[in-house]
Amino acid sequence: MIRVAVIGYGNIGRYAVEAVQEAKDMELAGVVRRAGSMDQTPDALRNVKVVSDVAELGKVDVAILCTPSRKVPETAMQYSAAGINTVDSYDIHGDTLWAFRRDLDAANKQHGTVSIISAGWDPGTDSVIRTLFTAMIPKGLTYTNFGPGMSMGHTVAVKSKEGVKNALSITIPAGTGVHRRMVYVELEPGADFASVAQAIKTDAYFVHDDTVVTQVDDVDALIDMGHGVLMERKGVSGRTHNQLVEFRMKINNPALTAQILVSCARATLRQRPGAYALPEIPVMDLIPGNRETLIKTLI
Amino acid sequence: MIRVAVIGYGNIGRYAVEAVQEAKDMELAGVVRRAGSMDQTPDALRNVKVVSDVAELGKVDVAILCTPSRKVPETAMQYSAAGINTVDSYDIHGDTLWAFRRDLDAANKQHGTVSIISAGWDPGTDSVIRTLFTAMIPKGLTYTNFGPGMSMGHTVAVKSKEGVKNALSITIPAGTGVHRRMVYVELEPGADFASVAQAIKTDAYFVHDDTVVTQVDDVDALIDMGHGVLMERKGVSGRTHNQLVEFRMKINNPALTAQILVSCARATLRQRPGAYALPEIPVMDLIPGNRETLIKTLI
Repeated sequence: MIRVAVIGYGNIGRYAVEAVQEAKDMELAGVVRRAGSMDQTPDALRNVKVVSDVAELGKVDVAILCTPSRKVPETAMQYSAAGINTVDSYDIHGDTLWAFRRDLDAANKQHGTVSIISAGWDPGTDSVIRTLFTAMIPKGLTYTNFGPGMSMGHTVAVKSKEGVKNALSITIPAGTGVHRRMVYVELEPGADFASVAQAIKTDAYFVHDDTVVTQVDDVDALIDMGHGVLMERKGVSGRTHNQLVEFRMKINNPALTAQILVSCARATLRQRPGAYALPEIPVMDLIPGNRETLIKTLI
Repeated sequence: MIRVAVIGYGNIGRYAVEAVQEAKDMELAGVVRRAGSMDQTPDALRNVKVVSDVAELGKVDVAILCTPSRKVPETAMQYSAAGINTVDSYDIHGDTLWAFRRDLDAANKQHGTVSIISAGWDPGTDSVIRTLFTAMIPKGLTYTNFGPGMSMGHTVAVKSKEGVKNALSITIPAGTGVHRRMVYVELEPGADFASVAQAIKTDAYFVHDDTVVTQVDDVDALIDMGHGVLMERKGVSGRTHNQLVEFRMKINNPALTAQILVSCARATLRQRPGAYALPEIPVMDLIPGNRETLIKTLI
Protein backbone atom coordinates (compact mmCIF):
# COMPACT_ATOMS: atom_id res chain seq x y z
CA MET A 1 0.00 0.00 0.00
CA ILE A 2 1.19 3.49 -0.89
CA ARG A 3 1.06 5.73 2.21
CA VAL A 4 -0.21 9.17 1.22
CA ALA A 5 -0.47 12.41 3.21
CA VAL A 6 -2.75 15.26 2.10
CA ILE A 7 -1.24 18.67 2.87
CA GLY A 8 -3.88 21.37 3.30
CA TYR A 9 -7.64 20.90 3.55
CA GLY A 10 -9.20 23.53 1.30
CA ASN A 11 -11.23 22.74 -1.82
CA ILE A 12 -8.72 20.40 -3.38
CA GLY A 13 -7.60 18.80 -0.09
CA ARG A 14 -11.17 17.72 0.67
CA TYR A 15 -11.51 15.92 -2.67
CA ALA A 16 -7.96 14.52 -2.46
CA VAL A 17 -8.86 12.78 0.81
CA GLU A 18 -11.85 11.14 -0.91
CA ALA A 19 -9.80 10.08 -3.95
CA VAL A 20 -7.07 8.53 -1.77
CA GLN A 21 -9.73 6.67 0.25
CA GLU A 22 -11.21 5.31 -3.01
CA ALA A 23 -7.81 4.15 -4.39
CA LYS A 24 -7.39 0.44 -3.63
CA ASP A 25 -3.57 0.61 -3.70
CA MET A 26 -3.37 3.56 -1.24
CA GLU A 27 -3.66 4.23 2.45
CA LEU A 28 -4.34 7.73 3.83
CA ALA A 29 -1.57 8.35 6.37
CA GLY A 30 -3.27 11.58 7.43
CA VAL A 31 -3.93 15.23 6.74
CA VAL A 32 -1.48 18.01 7.59
CA ARG A 33 -3.13 21.34 8.49
CA ARG A 34 -1.83 24.62 9.82
CA ALA A 35 -1.66 24.67 13.63
CA GLY A 36 -4.33 27.42 13.63
CA SER A 37 -6.96 25.22 11.87
CA MET A 38 -6.63 22.24 14.22
CA ASP A 39 -9.54 23.04 16.56
CA GLN A 40 -12.16 23.06 13.78
CA THR A 41 -11.71 19.55 12.36
CA PRO A 42 -14.62 18.80 9.98
CA ASP A 43 -16.79 15.66 10.21
CA ALA A 44 -15.24 14.09 7.10
CA LEU A 45 -11.91 13.86 8.96
CA ARG A 46 -13.34 12.21 12.10
CA ASN A 47 -11.54 8.92 11.38
CA VAL A 48 -8.49 10.53 9.80
CA LYS A 49 -5.28 11.47 11.60
CA VAL A 50 -4.98 15.27 11.43
CA VAL A 51 -1.62 16.75 12.43
CA SER A 52 0.31 19.98 12.00
CA ASP A 53 3.62 18.26 11.19
CA VAL A 54 3.99 15.38 8.69
CA ALA A 55 6.61 13.77 10.96
CA GLU A 56 3.71 12.72 13.25
CA LEU A 57 2.28 10.48 10.50
CA GLY A 58 5.04 7.85 10.47
CA LYS A 59 6.25 6.62 7.09
CA VAL A 60 4.80 8.68 4.24
CA ASP A 61 5.59 7.79 0.60
CA VAL A 62 3.96 10.75 -1.10
CA ALA A 63 2.60 14.12 0.01
CA ILE A 64 -0.21 15.67 -2.03
CA LEU A 65 0.29 19.42 -1.74
CA CYS A 66 -3.13 21.10 -1.63
CA THR A 67 -1.82 24.46 -0.45
CA PRO A 68 -2.27 27.66 -2.50
CA SER A 69 -0.04 27.67 -5.62
CA ARG A 70 2.23 30.41 -4.35
CA LYS A 71 3.21 28.36 -1.30
CA VAL A 72 3.84 25.19 -3.35
CA PRO A 73 7.54 25.67 -4.31
CA GLU A 74 8.65 26.27 -0.72
CA THR A 75 6.50 23.40 0.63
CA ALA A 76 7.73 20.98 -2.05
CA MET A 77 11.34 21.77 -1.13
CA GLN A 78 10.62 21.04 2.56
CA TYR A 79 9.05 17.65 1.79
CA SER A 80 11.84 16.76 -0.62
CA ALA A 81 14.39 17.47 2.14
CA ALA A 82 12.36 15.18 4.42
CA GLY A 83 12.68 12.34 1.86
CA ILE A 84 9.01 12.44 0.80
CA ASN A 85 7.79 12.46 -2.83
CA THR A 86 5.38 15.26 -3.74
CA VAL A 87 2.69 16.09 -6.25
CA ASP A 88 1.12 19.51 -6.67
CA SER A 89 -1.11 21.47 -8.99
CA TYR A 90 1.11 24.57 -9.23
CA ASP A 91 -0.62 26.63 -11.89
CA ILE A 92 1.59 29.54 -12.87
CA HIS A 93 2.74 28.71 -16.42
CA GLY A 94 5.90 29.77 -18.23
CA ASP A 95 9.23 30.89 -16.75
CA THR A 96 8.10 30.56 -13.12
CA LEU A 97 7.01 26.97 -13.65
CA TRP A 98 10.28 26.10 -15.36
CA ALA A 99 12.33 27.65 -12.51
CA PHE A 100 10.31 25.70 -9.95
CA ARG A 101 10.82 22.43 -11.83
CA ARG A 102 14.56 23.05 -12.29
CA ASP A 103 15.19 23.86 -8.59
CA LEU A 104 13.02 21.03 -7.29
CA ASP A 105 14.64 18.61 -9.76
CA ALA A 106 18.06 19.41 -8.28
CA ALA A 107 16.77 19.04 -4.69
CA ASN A 108 15.02 15.75 -5.49
CA LYS A 109 18.12 14.29 -7.12
CA GLN A 110 20.05 15.18 -3.98
CA HIS A 111 17.46 13.62 -1.64
CA GLY A 112 16.45 10.63 -3.81
CA THR A 113 12.85 11.83 -4.09
CA VAL A 114 10.40 12.30 -6.97
CA SER A 115 7.98 15.16 -7.63
CA ILE A 116 5.36 15.56 -10.32
CA ILE A 117 4.61 19.26 -10.55
CA SER A 118 1.71 21.20 -12.06
CA ALA A 119 -0.30 17.98 -12.06
CA GLY A 120 -3.84 19.31 -12.17
CA TRP A 121 -5.80 19.60 -15.40
CA ASP A 122 -4.23 22.80 -16.78
CA PRO A 123 -1.34 22.71 -16.38
CA GLY A 124 -1.52 18.93 -16.16
CA THR A 125 -3.66 16.58 -18.22
CA ASP A 126 -4.36 19.39 -20.73
CA SER A 127 -0.57 19.73 -21.13
CA VAL A 128 -0.33 16.02 -21.99
CA ILE A 129 -3.05 16.39 -24.62
CA ARG A 130 -1.56 19.64 -25.95
CA THR A 131 1.83 17.92 -26.34
CA LEU A 132 0.29 14.82 -27.94
CA PHE A 133 -1.69 17.00 -30.39
CA THR A 134 1.58 18.73 -31.38
CA ALA A 135 3.25 15.37 -32.02
CA MET A 136 0.30 14.32 -34.22
CA ILE A 137 0.06 17.63 -36.07
CA PRO A 138 3.45 19.37 -35.85
CA LYS A 139 2.40 22.49 -37.81
CA GLY A 140 -0.68 24.48 -36.85
CA LEU A 141 -2.37 26.26 -33.97
CA THR A 142 -3.77 24.92 -30.71
CA TYR A 143 -6.47 26.90 -28.92
CA THR A 144 -7.27 26.02 -25.31
CA ASN A 145 -10.63 27.48 -24.31
CA PHE A 146 -11.59 27.36 -20.61
CA GLY A 147 -14.98 27.57 -18.99
CA PRO A 148 -17.49 28.75 -18.29
CA GLY A 149 -16.51 27.86 -14.76
CA MET A 150 -14.89 28.87 -11.50
CA SER A 151 -11.10 29.10 -11.59
CA MET A 152 -9.62 27.90 -8.30
CA GLY A 153 -6.23 29.55 -8.74
CA HIS A 154 -7.74 32.89 -9.77
CA THR A 155 -10.25 32.78 -6.91
CA VAL A 156 -7.49 32.13 -4.35
CA ALA A 157 -5.48 35.02 -5.84
CA VAL A 158 -8.45 37.38 -5.38
CA LYS A 159 -9.13 36.14 -1.84
CA SER A 160 -5.55 37.03 -0.88
CA LYS A 161 -6.13 40.74 -1.65
CA GLU A 162 -6.50 43.14 1.26
CA GLY A 163 -10.10 44.11 1.91
CA VAL A 164 -11.56 40.97 0.27
CA LYS A 165 -13.76 38.84 2.56
CA ASN A 166 -14.82 36.28 -0.07
CA ALA A 167 -14.39 36.00 -3.82
CA LEU A 168 -15.22 34.04 -6.95
CA SER A 169 -13.42 34.24 -10.30
CA ILE A 170 -15.25 32.78 -13.28
CA THR A 171 -13.52 32.11 -16.60
CA ILE A 172 -15.59 32.78 -19.72
CA PRO A 173 -14.30 31.46 -23.07
CA ALA A 174 -14.24 34.12 -25.79
CA GLY A 175 -12.98 31.69 -28.49
CA THR A 176 -9.52 30.98 -29.99
CA GLY A 177 -8.01 30.79 -26.49
CA VAL A 178 -9.12 34.28 -25.42
CA HIS A 179 -10.93 34.60 -22.09
CA ARG A 180 -12.79 37.08 -19.97
CA ARG A 181 -12.47 36.89 -16.17
CA MET A 182 -15.65 37.69 -14.25
CA VAL A 183 -14.65 38.40 -10.65
CA TYR A 184 -17.23 38.68 -7.85
CA VAL A 185 -16.00 40.11 -4.53
CA GLU A 186 -17.55 40.42 -1.10
CA LEU A 187 -15.62 43.14 0.79
CA GLU A 188 -14.52 43.53 4.41
CA PRO A 189 -16.27 46.42 6.18
CA GLY A 190 -14.60 49.70 5.23
CA ALA A 191 -12.68 48.28 2.24
CA ASP A 192 -12.49 50.46 -0.87
CA PHE A 193 -13.92 48.71 -3.95
CA ALA A 194 -11.92 50.76 -6.48
CA SER A 195 -8.60 49.88 -4.79
CA VAL A 196 -9.52 46.19 -4.58
CA ALA A 197 -10.56 46.12 -8.26
CA GLN A 198 -7.28 47.80 -9.23
CA ALA A 199 -5.24 45.30 -7.19
CA ILE A 200 -7.01 42.41 -8.90
CA LYS A 201 -6.64 43.75 -12.45
CA THR A 202 -2.89 44.28 -12.03
CA ASP A 203 -2.25 40.84 -10.47
CA ALA A 204 -0.20 38.44 -12.67
CA TYR A 205 -3.20 36.07 -12.82
CA PHE A 206 -5.42 38.72 -14.44
CA VAL A 207 -3.20 41.25 -16.18
CA HIS A 208 -3.34 39.54 -19.61
CA ASP A 209 -7.13 39.07 -19.73
CA ASP A 210 -10.20 41.27 -19.96
CA THR A 211 -11.25 41.35 -16.28
CA VAL A 212 -14.59 42.58 -14.94
CA VAL A 213 -14.80 43.00 -11.14
CA THR A 214 -18.25 43.18 -9.51
CA GLN A 215 -19.05 43.74 -5.84
CA VAL A 216 -21.72 41.41 -4.38
CA ASP A 217 -23.23 40.88 -0.91
CA ASP A 218 -22.94 37.08 -0.82
CA VAL A 219 -20.35 35.17 -2.84
CA ASP A 220 -21.40 31.76 -1.48
CA ALA A 221 -24.73 31.99 -3.30
CA LEU A 222 -22.86 32.10 -6.65
CA ILE A 223 -20.50 29.16 -6.26
CA ASP A 224 -20.73 26.16 -8.61
CA MET A 225 -17.54 24.16 -9.15
CA GLY A 226 -18.39 22.84 -12.58
CA HIS A 227 -15.85 23.76 -15.24
CA GLY A 228 -15.02 22.95 -18.83
CA VAL A 229 -12.35 22.89 -21.50
CA LEU A 230 -12.42 22.86 -25.28
CA MET A 231 -8.96 22.35 -26.82
CA GLU A 232 -8.73 22.45 -30.61
CA ARG A 233 -5.82 21.94 -32.97
CA LYS A 234 -5.94 22.15 -36.76
CA GLY A 235 -2.88 21.80 -38.94
CA VAL A 236 -0.51 19.67 -40.95
CA SER A 237 0.74 16.08 -40.45
CA GLY A 238 3.74 15.59 -42.74
CA ARG A 239 2.52 17.52 -45.81
CA THR A 240 -1.19 16.80 -45.32
CA HIS A 241 -3.33 19.78 -44.27
CA ASN A 242 -6.71 20.06 -42.52
CA GLN A 243 -5.96 17.53 -39.75
CA LEU A 244 -8.45 18.26 -36.93
CA VAL A 245 -8.27 17.12 -33.30
CA GLU A 246 -10.36 18.26 -30.37
CA PHE A 247 -10.59 17.59 -26.63
CA ARG A 248 -13.59 18.57 -24.50
CA MET A 249 -14.50 18.11 -20.88
CA LYS A 250 -17.25 19.09 -18.45
CA ILE A 251 -16.16 18.32 -14.90
CA ASN A 252 -16.25 19.18 -11.22
CA ASN A 253 -13.00 21.12 -11.03
CA PRO A 254 -11.53 20.32 -7.58
CA ALA A 255 -12.68 16.68 -7.86
CA LEU A 256 -10.78 16.25 -11.14
CA THR A 257 -7.71 18.15 -9.90
CA ALA A 258 -7.62 15.98 -6.77
CA GLN A 259 -8.01 12.76 -8.78
CA ILE A 260 -5.16 13.68 -11.11
CA LEU A 261 -2.96 14.48 -8.08
CA VAL A 262 -3.79 11.09 -6.58
CA SER A 263 -3.04 9.26 -9.87
CA CYS A 264 0.25 11.19 -10.06
CA ALA A 265 1.07 10.28 -6.43
CA ARG A 266 1.07 6.66 -7.59
CA ALA A 267 3.26 7.55 -10.59
CA THR A 268 5.95 9.19 -8.41
CA LEU A 269 6.87 5.72 -7.16
CA ARG A 270 7.62 4.62 -10.74
CA GLN A 271 10.08 7.41 -11.70
CA ARG A 272 13.76 7.97 -11.06
CA PRO A 273 14.63 10.82 -8.62
CA GLY A 274 13.87 14.25 -10.08
CA ALA A 275 11.03 16.66 -10.77
CA TYR A 276 8.74 16.16 -13.76
CA ALA A 277 5.87 17.92 -15.44
CA LEU A 278 3.05 15.54 -16.40
CA PRO A 279 4.01 15.22 -20.13
CA GLU A 280 7.46 14.07 -19.01
CA ILE A 281 6.16 10.82 -17.51
CA PRO A 282 4.43 7.86 -19.21
CA VAL A 283 0.63 8.07 -18.78
CA MET A 284 0.55 4.35 -18.04
CA ASP A 285 2.36 5.01 -14.75
CA LEU A 286 -0.77 6.84 -13.54
CA ILE A 287 -2.89 3.68 -13.46
CA PRO A 288 -2.74 0.83 -10.91
CA GLY A 289 -2.31 -2.75 -12.10
CA ASN A 290 0.31 -4.83 -13.83
CA ARG A 291 1.74 -3.91 -17.20
CA GLU A 292 0.44 -7.00 -19.04
CA THR A 293 -3.19 -6.41 -18.03
CA LEU A 294 -2.99 -2.69 -18.78
CA ILE A 295 -1.54 -3.30 -22.23
CA LYS A 296 -4.16 -5.92 -23.06
CA THR A 297 -7.04 -3.69 -21.97
CA LEU A 298 -6.05 -0.05 -22.65
CA ILE A 299 -3.89 -0.12 -25.79
CA MET B 1 20.39 14.54 -37.45
CA ILE B 2 18.43 11.34 -36.87
CA ARG B 3 18.93 8.96 -39.82
CA VAL B 4 15.64 7.27 -40.66
CA ALA B 5 14.79 4.46 -43.08
CA VAL B 6 11.24 3.85 -44.28
CA ILE B 7 10.50 0.14 -44.75
CA GLY B 8 7.76 -0.49 -47.30
CA TYR B 9 6.18 2.02 -49.66
CA GLY B 10 2.44 1.43 -49.51
CA ASN B 11 -0.10 3.96 -48.19
CA ILE B 12 1.69 4.65 -44.91
CA GLY B 13 5.21 4.47 -46.36
CA ARG B 14 4.42 7.23 -48.87
CA TYR B 15 3.25 9.59 -46.12
CA ALA B 16 6.10 8.54 -43.80
CA VAL B 17 8.64 9.65 -46.42
CA GLU B 18 6.96 13.09 -46.54
CA ALA B 19 6.83 13.42 -42.75
CA VAL B 20 10.52 12.49 -42.39
CA GLN B 21 11.42 15.02 -45.10
CA GLU B 22 9.45 17.71 -43.20
CA ALA B 23 11.11 16.93 -39.82
CA LYS B 24 13.99 19.38 -39.27
CA ASP B 25 15.87 17.01 -36.95
CA MET B 26 15.75 14.04 -39.37
CA GLU B 27 17.45 12.85 -42.52
CA LEU B 28 15.86 10.22 -44.80
CA ALA B 29 18.52 7.51 -45.19
CA GLY B 30 16.36 5.78 -47.78
CA VAL B 31 13.45 3.50 -48.51
CA VAL B 32 13.62 -0.29 -48.33
CA ARG B 33 11.33 -2.11 -50.79
CA ARG B 34 10.88 -5.71 -51.77
CA ALA B 35 13.25 -6.71 -54.57
CA GLY B 36 10.20 -7.27 -56.85
CA SER B 37 9.04 -3.62 -56.59
CA MET B 38 12.39 -2.05 -57.47
CA ASP B 39 11.78 -1.50 -61.20
CA GLN B 40 8.69 0.69 -60.68
CA THR B 41 10.16 3.47 -58.51
CA PRO B 42 7.60 6.30 -58.29
CA ASP B 43 8.41 9.96 -59.04
CA ALA B 44 8.27 10.97 -55.36
CA LEU B 45 11.33 8.77 -54.72
CA ARG B 46 13.43 10.18 -57.58
CA ASN B 47 15.90 11.81 -55.16
CA VAL B 48 15.63 9.11 -52.49
CA LYS B 49 17.88 6.08 -52.13
CA VAL B 50 15.70 3.01 -52.73
CA VAL B 51 17.21 -0.36 -51.81
CA SER B 52 16.10 -3.90 -51.06
CA ASP B 53 18.38 -4.32 -48.02
CA VAL B 54 18.75 -1.73 -45.24
CA ALA B 55 22.49 -2.55 -44.99
CA GLU B 56 22.94 -0.58 -48.23
CA LEU B 57 21.82 2.64 -46.49
CA GLY B 58 24.82 3.05 -44.17
CA LYS B 59 24.15 4.07 -40.57
CA VAL B 60 20.42 4.00 -39.78
CA ASP B 61 19.17 5.07 -36.33
CA VAL B 62 15.51 4.14 -36.72
CA ALA B 63 13.48 2.06 -39.18
CA ILE B 64 9.83 2.99 -39.69
CA LEU B 65 8.08 -0.27 -40.48
CA CYS B 66 5.33 0.41 -43.03
CA THR B 67 4.76 -3.24 -43.92
CA PRO B 68 1.38 -4.97 -43.37
CA SER B 69 0.68 -5.58 -39.63
CA ARG B 70 1.04 -9.33 -39.88
CA LYS B 71 4.64 -9.02 -41.12
CA VAL B 72 5.59 -6.47 -38.44
CA PRO B 73 6.70 -8.79 -35.58
CA GLU B 74 9.13 -10.74 -37.78
CA THR B 75 10.49 -7.58 -39.43
CA ALA B 76 10.93 -5.79 -36.09
CA MET B 77 12.95 -8.73 -34.78
CA GLN B 78 15.24 -8.60 -37.85
CA TYR B 79 15.94 -4.88 -37.44
CA SER B 80 16.49 -5.28 -33.70
CA ALA B 81 19.10 -7.96 -34.41
CA ALA B 82 20.75 -5.52 -36.85
CA GLY B 83 21.03 -2.92 -34.05
CA ILE B 84 18.37 -0.58 -35.50
CA ASN B 85 15.52 0.95 -33.49
CA THR B 86 12.03 0.41 -34.90
CA VAL B 87 8.58 1.93 -34.83
CA ASP B 88 5.47 0.31 -36.25
CA SER B 89 1.70 0.63 -36.30
CA TYR B 90 0.93 -3.02 -35.49
CA ASP B 91 -2.83 -2.98 -35.00
CA ILE B 92 -3.95 -6.30 -33.60
CA HIS B 93 -5.01 -5.50 -29.99
CA GLY B 94 -5.04 -7.78 -26.94
CA ASP B 95 -3.03 -10.94 -26.30
CA THR B 96 -1.24 -10.87 -29.67
CA LEU B 97 -0.03 -7.32 -29.10
CA TRP B 98 1.20 -8.17 -25.62
CA ALA B 99 3.10 -11.23 -26.89
CA PHE B 100 4.72 -9.13 -29.62
CA ARG B 101 5.79 -6.46 -27.11
CA ARG B 102 7.14 -9.04 -24.66
CA ASP B 103 9.24 -10.89 -27.26
CA LEU B 104 10.55 -7.73 -28.91
CA ASP B 105 11.33 -6.22 -25.48
CA ALA B 106 13.60 -9.20 -24.72
CA ALA B 107 15.30 -8.99 -28.13
CA ASN B 108 15.83 -5.22 -27.82
CA LYS B 109 17.34 -5.54 -24.36
CA GLN B 110 19.75 -8.10 -25.80
CA HIS B 111 20.70 -5.91 -28.78
CA GLY B 112 20.62 -2.50 -27.05
CA THR B 113 17.82 -1.24 -29.31
CA VAL B 114 14.48 0.50 -28.72
CA SER B 115 11.11 -0.13 -30.35
CA ILE B 116 7.83 1.72 -29.99
CA ILE B 117 5.14 -0.66 -31.14
CA SER B 118 1.53 -0.10 -32.21
CA ALA B 119 2.32 3.58 -32.67
CA GLY B 120 -0.41 4.66 -35.05
CA TRP B 121 -3.59 6.33 -33.84
CA ASP B 122 -5.47 3.25 -32.60
CA PRO B 123 -3.64 1.53 -31.10
CA GLY B 124 -1.36 4.51 -30.51
CA THR B 125 -2.38 8.07 -29.70
CA ASP B 126 -5.93 6.90 -28.87
CA SER B 127 -4.35 4.49 -26.35
CA VAL B 128 -2.55 7.42 -24.68
CA ILE B 129 -5.81 9.35 -24.42
CA ARG B 130 -7.75 6.26 -23.25
CA THR B 131 -5.16 5.70 -20.50
CA LEU B 132 -5.14 9.37 -19.51
CA PHE B 133 -8.96 9.41 -19.35
CA THR B 134 -8.83 6.39 -17.02
CA ALA B 135 -6.35 8.16 -14.73
CA MET B 136 -8.65 11.22 -14.60
CA ILE B 137 -11.85 9.23 -14.12
CA PRO B 138 -10.93 5.83 -12.63
CA LYS B 139 -14.53 4.49 -12.49
CA GLY B 140 -16.75 4.53 -15.55
CA LEU B 141 -16.93 3.48 -19.18
CA THR B 142 -14.92 4.57 -22.21
CA TYR B 143 -16.45 4.22 -25.66
CA THR B 144 -14.17 4.52 -28.70
CA ASN B 145 -16.21 5.15 -31.84
CA PHE B 146 -14.42 4.95 -35.19
CA GLY B 147 -15.36 6.39 -38.54
CA PRO B 148 -16.96 6.81 -40.85
CA GLY B 149 -13.78 6.08 -42.72
CA MET B 150 -11.53 3.60 -44.46
CA SER B 151 -9.70 1.19 -42.15
CA MET B 152 -6.21 0.49 -43.48
CA GLY B 153 -5.63 -2.72 -41.46
CA HIS B 154 -9.02 -4.15 -42.39
CA THR B 155 -8.56 -3.25 -46.05
CA VAL B 156 -5.16 -4.98 -46.16
CA ALA B 157 -6.69 -8.04 -44.49
CA VAL B 158 -9.38 -8.23 -47.21
CA LYS B 159 -6.86 -7.68 -50.01
CA SER B 160 -4.91 -10.72 -48.78
CA LYS B 161 -7.88 -13.05 -49.42
CA GLU B 162 -7.74 -15.39 -52.40
CA GLY B 163 -9.83 -14.14 -55.32
CA VAL B 164 -9.75 -10.47 -54.23
CA LYS B 165 -8.30 -8.08 -56.79
CA ASN B 166 -8.93 -4.85 -54.84
CA ALA B 167 -10.81 -4.02 -51.67
CA LEU B 168 -11.99 -1.28 -49.33
CA SER B 169 -13.18 -1.72 -45.74
CA ILE B 170 -15.10 1.20 -44.24
CA THR B 171 -15.80 1.45 -40.51
CA ILE B 172 -19.20 2.88 -39.55
CA PRO B 173 -19.75 3.94 -35.92
CA ALA B 174 -22.94 2.48 -34.44
CA GLY B 175 -22.47 4.25 -31.05
CA THR B 176 -21.12 3.09 -27.65
CA GLY B 177 -18.09 1.55 -29.34
CA VAL B 178 -20.08 -0.75 -31.63
CA HIS B 179 -19.21 -0.72 -35.35
CA ARG B 180 -20.39 -2.02 -38.65
CA ARG B 181 -17.79 -2.96 -41.31
CA MET B 182 -18.79 -2.14 -44.89
CA VAL B 183 -16.49 -4.13 -47.18
CA TYR B 184 -16.31 -3.47 -50.95
CA VAL B 185 -14.51 -6.07 -53.06
CA GLU B 186 -13.43 -6.21 -56.68
CA LEU B 187 -12.89 -9.88 -57.58
CA GLU B 188 -10.34 -11.68 -59.75
CA PRO B 189 -11.88 -13.30 -62.84
CA GLY B 190 -13.53 -16.58 -61.86
CA ALA B 191 -13.46 -15.93 -58.10
CA ASP B 192 -16.54 -16.99 -56.13
CA PHE B 193 -18.14 -14.08 -54.26
CA ALA B 194 -19.81 -16.25 -51.59
CA SER B 195 -16.51 -17.92 -50.66
CA VAL B 196 -14.69 -14.59 -50.53
CA ALA B 197 -17.43 -13.06 -48.33
CA GLN B 198 -17.26 -16.05 -46.00
CA ALA B 199 -13.45 -15.83 -45.74
CA ILE B 200 -13.73 -12.13 -44.84
CA LYS B 201 -16.46 -12.55 -42.22
CA THR B 202 -14.54 -15.27 -40.39
CA ASP B 203 -11.22 -13.36 -40.38
CA ALA B 204 -10.03 -12.19 -36.91
CA TYR B 205 -10.32 -8.57 -38.07
CA PHE B 206 -14.05 -8.94 -38.78
CA VAL B 207 -15.41 -11.80 -36.73
CA HIS B 208 -16.57 -9.58 -33.80
CA ASP B 209 -18.39 -6.98 -35.90
CA ASP B 210 -21.46 -6.79 -38.09
CA THR B 211 -19.84 -7.10 -41.53
CA VAL B 212 -21.52 -6.39 -44.86
CA VAL B 213 -19.59 -7.47 -47.98
CA THR B 214 -20.53 -5.95 -51.34
CA GLN B 215 -19.09 -6.77 -54.75
CA VAL B 216 -18.25 -3.75 -56.94
CA ASP B 217 -16.65 -3.24 -60.36
CA ASP B 218 -14.20 -0.50 -59.38
CA VAL B 219 -12.91 -0.09 -55.82
CA ASP B 220 -10.64 2.85 -56.72
CA ALA B 221 -13.67 5.05 -57.40
CA LEU B 222 -14.75 4.67 -53.73
CA ILE B 223 -11.51 5.45 -51.91
CA ASP B 224 -11.31 8.46 -49.57
CA MET B 225 -8.74 8.25 -46.77
CA GLY B 226 -10.50 10.58 -44.36
CA HIS B 227 -11.30 8.99 -41.03
CA GLY B 228 -12.56 9.97 -37.61
CA VAL B 229 -12.73 9.06 -33.94
CA LEU B 230 -15.03 10.01 -31.10
CA MET B 231 -13.83 8.72 -27.72
CA GLU B 232 -16.07 9.39 -24.73
CA ARG B 233 -15.64 8.62 -21.05
CA LYS B 234 -18.14 9.41 -18.28
CA GLY B 235 -17.60 8.40 -14.69
CA VAL B 236 -16.31 9.11 -11.22
CA SER B 237 -13.23 11.05 -10.01
CA GLY B 238 -12.74 10.21 -6.32
CA ARG B 239 -16.40 10.14 -5.19
CA THR B 240 -17.65 12.76 -7.66
CA HIS B 241 -19.90 11.45 -10.44
CA ASN B 242 -20.81 12.82 -13.89
CA GLN B 243 -17.27 13.70 -14.95
CA LEU B 244 -17.28 13.93 -18.77
CA VAL B 245 -14.33 13.86 -21.16
CA GLU B 246 -14.34 13.54 -24.93
CA PHE B 247 -11.79 13.33 -27.76
CA ARG B 248 -12.67 13.83 -31.41
CA MET B 249 -10.69 13.88 -34.61
CA LYS B 250 -11.25 14.16 -38.35
CA ILE B 251 -8.07 13.30 -40.19
CA ASN B 252 -6.39 11.83 -43.26
CA ASN B 253 -5.68 8.38 -41.88
CA PRO B 254 -2.33 7.33 -43.43
CA ALA B 255 -0.97 10.89 -43.06
CA LEU B 256 -1.68 10.87 -39.33
CA THR B 257 -0.41 7.32 -38.84
CA ALA B 258 2.81 8.21 -40.64
CA GLN B 259 3.28 11.41 -38.62
CA ILE B 260 2.84 9.55 -35.33
CA LEU B 261 5.37 6.93 -36.49
CA VAL B 262 7.85 9.69 -37.33
CA SER B 263 7.33 11.43 -33.95
CA CYS B 264 7.85 8.06 -32.26
CA ALA B 265 11.01 7.42 -34.31
CA ARG B 266 12.44 10.51 -32.58
CA ALA B 267 11.26 9.22 -29.19
CA THR B 268 13.05 5.86 -29.60
CA LEU B 269 16.35 7.71 -29.19
CA ARG B 270 15.23 8.95 -25.75
CA GLN B 271 14.32 5.57 -24.18
CA ARG B 272 16.34 2.84 -22.56
CA PRO B 273 16.60 -0.45 -24.55
CA GLY B 274 13.29 -2.32 -24.71
CA ALA B 275 9.94 -2.36 -26.48
CA TYR B 276 7.21 0.07 -25.48
CA ALA B 277 3.62 0.79 -26.34
CA LEU B 278 2.92 4.51 -26.77
CA PRO B 279 1.36 5.05 -23.29
CA GLU B 280 4.56 3.66 -21.78
CA ILE B 281 6.69 6.59 -22.95
CA PRO B 282 6.47 10.29 -22.02
CA VAL B 283 4.58 12.28 -24.69
CA MET B 284 7.17 15.04 -24.43
CA ASP B 285 9.75 12.69 -25.98
CA LEU B 286 7.74 12.83 -29.22
CA ILE B 287 8.51 16.51 -29.84
CA PRO B 288 11.82 18.03 -31.02
CA GLY B 289 13.43 20.82 -29.01
CA ASN B 290 15.00 21.31 -25.63
CA ARG B 291 13.18 20.53 -22.41
CA GLU B 292 13.18 24.10 -21.09
CA THR B 293 11.54 25.56 -24.20
CA LEU B 294 8.99 22.74 -24.38
CA ILE B 295 8.01 23.16 -20.73
CA LYS B 296 7.65 26.92 -21.08
CA THR B 297 5.48 26.63 -24.19
CA LEU B 298 3.45 23.39 -23.91
CA ILE B 299 2.72 22.90 -20.20
